[in-house]
Amino acid sequence: QSSVTLFGIVDATYAYGKGEGVGGSKKSQLTNSGYNSSRLGFRGTEDLGGGMSASFWLEAGVNNDNGAGSATNTNNQATGGAVAGIGGGQGLTFNRRSTVSLAGGWGELRLGRDYTPQFFNLTVFDPFGTNGVGTTQTLNSIGSAGAQPTGVVVVPTAVRASNSIGYFLPGNIGGFYGQAQYYMGENNDNSTLTVGTVTRNTKSDGTGGGFRVGYAAGPFNVAFSMSKTNYAFGDVEQNNVGGQWDFGFAKLMGQYSFDSIGTATAGDVDGKGWLIGGLIPVGAGEIRLSYSTYEYDIGTKPEIKKFAIGYVHNLSKRTALYTTYARLDNSGGASQALNGATTAANTKSDGFDIGIRHSF
Amino acid sequence: QSSVTLFGIVDATYAYGKGEGVGGSKKSQLTNSGYNSSRLGFRGTEDLGGGMSASFWLEAGVNNDNGAGSATNTNNQATGGAVAGIGGGQGLTFNRRSTVSLAGGWGELRLGRDYTPQFFNLTVFDPFGTNGVGTTQTLNSIGSAGAQPTGVVVVPTAVRASNSIGYFLPGNIGGFYGQAQYYMGENNDNSTLTVGTVTRNTKSDGTGGGFRVGYAAGPFNVAFSMSKTNYAFGDVEQNNVGGQWDFGFAKLMGQYSFDSIGTATAGDVDGKGWLIGGLIPVGAGEIRLSYSTYEYDIGTKPEIKKFAIGYVHNLSKRTALYTTYARLDNSGGASQALNGATTAANTKSDGFDIGIRHSF
Amino acid sequence: QSSVTLFGIVDATYAYGKGEGVGGSKKSQLTNSGYNSSRLGFRGTEDLGGGMSASFWLEAGVNNDNGAGSATNTNNQATGGAVAGIGGGQGLTFNRRSTVSLAGGWGELRLGRDYTPQFFNLTVFDPFGTNGVGTTQTLNSIGSAGAQPTGVVVVPTAVRASNSIGYFLPGNIGGFYGQAQYYMGENNDNSTLTVGTVTRNTKSDGTGGGFRVGYAAGPFNVAFSMSKTNYAFGDVEQNNVGGQWDFGFAKLMGQYSFDSIGTATAGDVDGKGWLIGGLIPVGAGEIRLSYSTYEYDIGTKPEIKKFAIGYVHNLSKRTALYTTYARLDNSGGASQALNGATTAANTKSDGFDIGIRHSF
Repeated sequence: QSSVTLFGIVDATYAYGKGEGVGGSKKSQLTNSGYNSSRLGFRGTEDLGGGMSASFWLEAGVNNDNGAGSATNTNNQATGGAVAGIGGGQGLTFNRRSTVSLAGGWGELRLGRDYTPQFFNLTVFDPFGTNGVGTTQTLNSIGSAGAQPTGVVVVPTAVRASNSIGYFLPGNIGGFYGQAQYYMGENNDNSTLTVGTVTRNTKSDGTGGGFRVGYAAGPFNVAFSMSKTNYAFGDVEQNNVGGQWDFGFAKLMGQYSFDSIGTATAGDVDGKGWLIGGLIPVGAGEIRLSYSTYEYDIGTKPEIKKFAIGYVHNLSKRTALYTTYARLDNSGGASQALNGATTAANTKSDGFDIGIRHSF
Repeated sequence: QSSVTLFGIVDATYAYGKGEGVGGSKKSQLTNSGYNSSRLGFRGTEDLGGGMSASFWLEAGVNNDNGAGSATNTNNQATGGAVAGIGGGQGLTFNRRSTVSLAGGWGELRLGRDYTPQFFNLTVFDPFGTNGVGTTQTLNSIGSAGAQPTGVVVVPTAVRASNSIGYFLPGNIGGFYGQAQYYMGENNDNSTLTVGTVTRNTKSDGTGGGFRVGYAAGPFNVAFSMSKTNYAFGDVEQNNVGGQWDFGFAKLMGQYSFDSIGTATAGDVDGKGWLIGGLIPVGAGEIRLSYSTYEYDIGTKPEIKKFAIGYVHNLSKRTALYTTYARLDNSGGASQALNGATTAANTKSDGFDIGIRHSF
Repeated sequence: QSSVTLFGIVDATYAYGKGEGVGGSKKSQLTNSGYNSSRLGFRGTEDLGGGMSASFWLEAGVNNDNGAGSATNTNNQATGGAVAGIGGGQGLTFNRRSTVSLAGGWGELRLGRDYTPQFFNLTVFDPFGTNGVGTTQTLNSIGSAGAQPTGVVVVPTAVRASNSIGYFLPGNIGGFYGQAQYYMGENNDNSTLTVGTVTRNTKSDGTGGGFRVGYAAGPFNVAFSMSKTNYAFGDVEQNNVGGQWDFGFAKLMGQYSFDSIGTATAGDVDGKGWLIGGLIPVGAGEIRLSYSTYEYDIGTKPEIKKFAIGYVHNLSKRTALYTTYARLDNSGGASQALNGATTAANTKSDGFDIGIRHSF
């Protein structure tokens, strides 16, 4: 009865990771999303007349190496996330985006689950986007389970938020662009949580917001973002700035993150990261390069430095072959490893991806 | 290779609820389905010749505020329902409808998961359908988790049943319409359940059936429905009658429910509810009004009365803005609250929705 | 933006099973996939020029009797499979197939979750495919939960494998066809598992591979397959040969399986099965017949013999009515039963399906 666009990406990659030292291990996988995130989506737009339109967007993450779906997070809190041990039982959810919008000359109002404003600089100004072994260390440090120092939790709103009300500026305001978002944790106002012997009211847990403003002109693009999400045992502030300059023979990118992650017992922990990298077109492909780092101001100041190099070869607009190599250097007690391997504290880890990305 | 219709609804709403007294709380949400139930579906029909056709219908509920799917119930029993604590891990199921049909001049035979006949009067003759803060109190009382008096369980077949065989009368019999349905719980015939010290055979648990007959002519429409579902520890009988008269300037609706819900220890509990309401067209929109009530004949006879008023403004056939306000009045020990709030027994609760419904 | 094919099957069947003796029970169900497996899928192909193409295939199993999805297995091990007790919470996964392919004159490279080579002879050379009460006893014995003798586990790769890299010969090599597949369990190389007092390294658990080669010419088709999947506590070898001859008035089929399933405590257990059967066209339908058997060389040598007869009536190319009757004969301590019934050891069980298959 109406026009729905069915779209998606199926990206499969062989991924290898290796760690060092006591407890270090290797891992081989046929996994997904090494270049772009695998997905299946449905979207459409209705013209309402008078410059107004309504639209919807339902987009599910797909683990095409094994057919499983991906969990979403219903309340921007740890309690609303994935179920431990669900394995092959994890069905499809529209975890990547599920929104309905009204748009007009005044901009766009968007309701539902969507990217947070504080995420975009991390992916837009990263030569590797946020996929695969080469992605910016900032995202690996704050958004990945198991990567944080003791007591520092994964930030549920580092990439997306549920129950959000977002506003986007219209596209025609002289190179300026921007958005703001408010999201709700949806707890009852008499909710409490007890950690140890301390009980606190958690009515605002998972509630927060952020904004992003930018300016793009010719070869130049720069943007700034700030955000705060409330948790009774430690608010999270995620802030960043990023930019790029397109020299034609190469595109230079950089980003800087300055975050503050509250913890239940260690107070607010500051985190700082930066990235510098670039994309170099070569015939039907491009070379990708980046160096990124992230450090937590806690204890022995765990720090991770990452170098990544890769090449993408486009067989068509929709289909590409790619490979990436990356190497991590842990210090200050950090023990991150690449591609699912494990490594001892203060050692190195390296890994590579080789895969195919097909979009439809 | 064949024509499949992809269809759906994305309905997002800001929902606020407030309770009173000791334990009373407030809650704010960006939730879904305030006007129509959010969904994604696939359906199609094949002409078999000779007036015969085959068709399928697969329709999934979508929680578009957070991207999660909705659980189905596989066996019309508590054991076949949603998993506690699955949160953001709940994937899409075709919980709303998953059927295959054969149809001809003799009517339609439909197999699979579908609405039960006993549900339709509750939604067709309710100005608020069965969505949002204003829906009929009968459905809130018998079909919603946590709303029942102690010992009275949610009825798994109040709205839909799995493993069903349904028959629908053809559409051309002089204003008469009707359907009958049989559904199976699928237990082995030597299954047993022990509650306390009592062990009973549960081979028929979740097995049952119902019918609905009606007559529509000009402005007039009336229908009657009866059903029974077997449970070793308490059969459920759900019965109702409803009707409407379209006066042109307004559509008047009414319904009456008389149910019997068996309990493990308190015997059969009678429940009675009624609703009176109407729809008043106003330009591109309509005003919605209803008063409904439900009472259980158990203990102190918990009773809930609800008043609701709302307005829907159509931006197009597919897109509408809406708002609804409702107020509950608990007595006899009841303590229901609206939109996820909590309230003390015998107090009031109010709440409102404001949202957008977009269909495709 | 591109052409995606949406396809599927909705197959609903009334299934009855009956067992005998102490603990024997009967069961009635409205279930799915009695003739063909119910599914919903998305697929497409892109022409890359020069005889090359890229394609994707995402196919989900659908339990259309109740709307639930089906679990996949993420790592070809017991730990990556379905969650116990998820019931109506099981969402859709692309458990049936989720692949991306590159193809050319040299054949096809396929990555993701797919059928294993060792599965095809079991379904291609079975008059009942692998669906419904009549399917070959080999598959029932090695691929179905609860059917194995004590200590013999379900083989996760009997039908499909995740994390696979597959290669298919091109289609134009004089009647020969073939494929090979390698799949990964994706454990870290220092993973261990302890059973009782024995600890073993499990880095290769769920990793394995297989191949299948065949030859088809005119009425004749024959194929051979071998495979091995590693598990620290018992490798699995699944091997089979099958063939058919189309006499025109009937198609004769046969298959022979010789498997070895390692167990944690009883060493390698050999299993042997065979099937003989046929398809007889009758007007718009066909009669289906088969006799199959499977025996484990363990303890008292449990053996199951199955006889099945059925009829399929095609209402169109897409829609068919069907019925099947089958009877099992257990000996050597076996106690399998049909269609969800239970039966005492060394007794018989029978059951039937009657249903409708609609494809789109």
